[in-house]
Amino acid sequence: MKRVGQVEIRRGMSVDELMREYGRAGVLGAGALARACDILEEMVKARATVFLGLAGPLVAAGMRGAIAELIRMGAVSAVVTNGANVVHDVIEAIGGAHYVGSFRSSDAELHSAEIGRIGNVYTRVKDFVAFEDFARELLSRIPEERRQNLSIRELLTEIGRSLSDGGSFLRAAFERRVPVFSPAVVDSMLGLQLFFFAERHRLVLNAVKDMKELAQLVFDAEQVGALFLGGGVPKHYILGANLLRGGIDYGIQVTLDREEAGSLSGAKLEEGISWGKTREEGKVVSVVGDATIILPLLVASLKERLG
Amino acid sequence: MKRVGQVEIRRGMSVDELMREYGRAGVLGAGALARACDILEEMVKARATVFLGLAGPLVAAGMRGAIAELIRMGAVSAVVTNGANVVHDVIEAIGGAHYVGSFRSSDAELHSAEIGRIGNVYTRVKDFVAFEDFARELLSRIPEERRQNLSIRELLTEIGRSLSDGGSFLRAAFERRVPVFSPAVVDSMLGLQLFFFAERHRLVLNAVKDMKELAQLVFDAEQVGALFLGGGVPKHYILGANLLRGGIDYGIQVTLDREEAGSLSGAKLEEGISWGKTREEGKVVSVVGDATIILPLLVASLKERLG
Amino acid sequence: MKRVGQVEIRRGMSVDELMREYGRAGVLGAGALARACDILEEMVKARATVFLGLAGPLVAAGMRGAIAELIRMGAVSAVVTNGANVVHDVIEAIGGAHYVGSFRSSDAELHSAEIGRIGNVYTRVKDFVAFEDFARELLSRIPEERRQNLSIRELLTEIGRSLSDGGSFLRAAFERRVPVFSPAVVDSMLGLQLFFFAERHRLVLNAVKDMKELAQLVFDAEQVGALFLGGGVPKHYILGANLLRGGIDYGIQVTLDREEAGSLSGAKLEEGISWGKTREEGKVVSVVGDATIILPLLVASLKERLG
Amino acid sequence: MKRVGQVEIRRGMSVDELMREYGRAGVLGAGALARACDILEEMVKARATVFLGLAGPLVAAGMRGAIAELIRMGAVSAVVTNGANVVHDVIEAIGGAHYVGSFRSSDAELHSAEIGRIGNVYTRVKDFVAFEDFARELLSRIPEERRQNLSIRELLTEIGRSLSDGGSFLRAAFERRVPVFSPAVVDSMLGLQLFFFAERHRLVLNAVKDMKELAQLVFDAEQVGALFLGGGVPKHYILGANLLRGGIDYGIQVTLDREEAGSLSGAKLEEGISWGKTREEGKVVSVVGDATIILPLLVASLKERLG
Repeated sequence: MKRVGQVEIRRGMSVDELMREYGRAGVLGAGALARACDILEEMVKARATVFLGLAGPLVAAGMRGAIAELIRMGAVSAVVTNGANVVHDVIEAIGGAHYVGSFRSSDAELHSAEIGRIGNVYTRVKDFVAFEDFARELLSRIPEERRQNLSIRELLTEIGRSLSDGGSFLRAAFERRVPVFSPAVVDSMLGLQLFFFAERHRLVLNAVKDMKELAQLVFDAEQVGALFLGGGVPKHYILGANLLRGGIDYGIQVTLDREEAGSLSGAKLEEGISWGKTREEGKVVSVVGDATIILPLLVASLKERLG
Repeated sequence: MKRVGQVEIRRGMSVDELMREYGRAGVLGAGALARACDILEEMVKARATVFLGLAGPLVAAGMRGAIAELIRMGAVSAVVTNGANVVHDVIEAIGGAHYVGSFRSSDAELHSAEIGRIGNVYTRVKDFVAFEDFARELLSRIPEERRQNLSIRELLTEIGRSLSDGGSFLRAAFERRVPVFSPAVVDSMLGLQLFFFAERHRLVLNAVKDMKELAQLVFDAEQVGALFLGGGVPKHYILGANLLRGGIDYGIQVTLDREEAGSLSGAKLEEGISWGKTREEGKVVSVVGDATIILPLLVASLKERLG
Repeated sequence: MKRVGQVEIRRGMSVDELMREYGRAGVLGAGALARACDILEEMVKARATVFLGLAGPLVAAGMRGAIAELIRMGAVSAVVTNGANVVHDVIEAIGGAHYVGSFRSSDAELHSAEIGRIGNVYTRVKDFVAFEDFARELLSRIPEERRQNLSIRELLTEIGRSLSDGGSFLRAAFERRVPVFSPAVVDSMLGLQLFFFAERHRLVLNAVKDMKELAQLVFDAEQVGALFLGGGVPKHYILGANLLRGGIDYGIQVTLDREEAGSLSGAKLEEGISWGKTREEGKVVSVVGDATIILPLLVASLKERLG
Repeated sequence: MKRVGQVEIRRGMSVDELMREYGRAGVLGAGALARACDILEEMVKARATVFLGLAGPLVAAGMRGAIAELIRMGAVSAVVTNGANVVHDVIEAIGGAHYVGSFRSSDAELHSAEIGRIGNVYTRVKDFVAFEDFARELLSRIPEERRQNLSIRELLTEIGRSLSDGGSFLRAAFERRVPVFSPAVVDSMLGLQLFFFAERHRLVLNAVKDMKELAQLVFDAEQVGALFLGGGVPKHYILGANLLRGGIDYGIQVTLDREEAGSLSGAKLEEGISWGKTREEGKVVSVVGDATIILPLLVASLKERLG
């Protein structure tokens, strides 16, 4: 049996040096996090096709830079995100912002002040108005013929192309030719804009078309890795597609959801073995934690390791 | 100030009698649950347009009867579900089943035995094979013209129409003319079948078309209530649509997710006030618990109250 | 494999009839709760020595009646509680009360109003003042000789003896000769009173003396069952003592704590098998939920079953 | 309003440089962690009386070095711990160890192999046997007169004095004259040894005596800070004592427990304001996370900041 090592703290130690100490401990959260970092390093060095699943308000919470960094490092082959991260990425890219607020604010007062709250992140209605203009203009520029059968991935590529903000993860993905999927985008503010646009113009958003492209990515992969920040539809979508090849080879999930109620979001990645969504010999780990703490630790350590 | 009442337990008491005792306690989980029941009763008696949001494996876990019952009681105006509950409802309706398993089973052994695990629920691959046949045949029967621009709601209505199982919530919804939406259905086994079908036939699943119908429901409503079992896309989709009318009037959510990481799934419904997704004077409550325990309590009490 | 049954809801069904429906479902939270009820019934009918572990503010939250009921039904052989439940039981017994409040209140305003908050339960400083008088008088009445080497259990028996409120769980325990332990009582308001009293009088609270009595209970038991509401010190204390006989035979825990961080509070009872705190063939289950919801369900069903 | 900053990741950045990036984000988990670090720095620099509360298996999980480091840095004035961390600290100090295991192991097989499991940490029965010898000998060396009225703090000081392992937090505390309290020590393996010893020798463990010393610490303090790793009795004990001075000035808690069920472990530190356990103007924060990840981040950053 391997002994639990007692973590040593040294003045000015780097993030990856601390990550190695978590690995010396090797158990509970510290052990899981260190293992996640090792798996991430391995999947990237093995040139696996790496899916990044984004649930939760990561961009609004300041994680956009870390996500874009992962993409620019070449560590990501495809992104699957909820719609909200798309919206918030655009908002920052077109001059909007997110603000430091409070969980305990008066939501009625925020409503009067035209501030929408996401946990303790504040957003301004006027930024959403700017987003609406952006979305309408972007949709208008897409040729009507393409709009008859547009995949969500194609729409997001167009958005990435249109942005000039180097901090944008959609822009980074566009530049690195990393496809971005968002199967449930209709549940977001972008979804509402699609609806408004479709009231006056022809627009068919064909969710099945995305699946063809996603499936091709999976079929072409020699190895597959996945980094899930939160669960939800991105996780289900990525794992479901990987059924087509017998499962992922590497997997990391970071979540505060729990498994007892049976939701996929809280399920351990090992559960996927029964389905053929995770390979039996796959290397997988779950880190119980807030992605806004865990993601920067992983990205900083990975960057240090890739040297 | 109202005193906390000490709960009294009587032999043979009915579920609603116990619910009244939770209300006498009035605090923590008991108080939240009692308030949820009062809000549910009120929204139903007020003939509000009631949205039922379904996330998590509710049907696989035996909650199909309770969901169908709610629909048959006339307590539900529209359902928004993840894709999984659609799939599992069909599986039961066409002769398949779900099985009592274990969280701690060997997933490799289950894989060999062709059993897919959802928490401690087991499912059989052969039932999914039967589901595939069902889905392919159903899709084939839809006229090609309709398939060029099919909303997900339309697809689910066709499924409900085709089932004869009285226990099916899709059948109950079909019979009661309750629309069923599933905006992220592509992340499910039904999504995979749509993809396979689209490889050989023309099929356009137009997610924007659903939004038009959803929006009409919201515009037509005098009052809106929502019962969210779990969060995820169903919750986001329902609340997002209700932005169009200034928010829901009544809301109940049942979840084990937590709010600190900022996900909508864990967010309290009061957060929606800042966005105009919940009315300032709206009556909302969050119950922290497993929906497989809480839902039957709510349905049994409601049934007793409706008399 | 046993099929998951679809829960049926009937108008006016009793709590235990619903509990049987949870059992028909048999999985996730519903299955765990039904199994907990079966185990509880079995341990009581087998006349096992049953320990009841109380953590969290159960009495303040209105669960005092349900706890007293369990004791009066003869279903409990010994109670191990945090200090807070002792304090709140006395407060109710001597004319004080707890009040329905809010999680989101201004704690500064509450402080000015001399209201202490426990989640959304409010308590009044004046009730604690009355408690102080009660505690001081009670301690004064204990002969000085006994006070030189007082076990905590002895102190709590004296408290139970002194109360006349039939709803008090301490009184019920006194009447049924059920010992009440509280190993960490010094962390409570009663602990503070012990400290104040000891400033002026001789008082030795001998925590080791309690262990002798606890150990005797364990040694004398033919079978042991345990019902843990919350984890914490009560759980650790009960399980630790049962090491002396090779572990508990029956165990139920109800908690929202989780296991990943390694705390005993969140640990599944199966973990105790490795230690000899749970017998290998022991029947144990964990219910993830709020005890203020789950406890009344268990007590009502048990009462119905005991007929 | 302050803008949410997008986190920047740089190659080889130090832990505190990353902590500053969390602070630039400023929201959700990242913001809470950065604020915790700022509060920790401030309380240490202000020379507040700092209480360190230890719940959960921190030592068994490799956090002993980080805890000892905090004490040796002079950042801690008093420790309040569960009994388990005392036991595991001694086990490491006298040549025992903890091992990297699995949450999903067979507990029956572990029991046969004489391995006790704490989450995914394994411990050996033989190390507990060595601990028993250590405890018996230590208790024997305490003069009988002192044993008639021994506070738990005195016992733990004797243990610290007897250890020569520089990595031990009990040794570090002894050397730095930092008192270590453990009000519920009887629930631990040390508690069992106290019981066994008391069967053959006179031993009175006077928990009230500890409170006198704890109260003096509080009365003497100009400012009070508290760092709570987990909740439980250590948190309740520390906060309860600080009632005597109107509450703590600085507070940090790191926990995965949640507040809805009303337990003190999950309660936000702001709740303490209503009780006078936290000062109204106190600086407090809760970090939702696994202490084995969060503690090393805090200690490494603090060390870098103290320079």
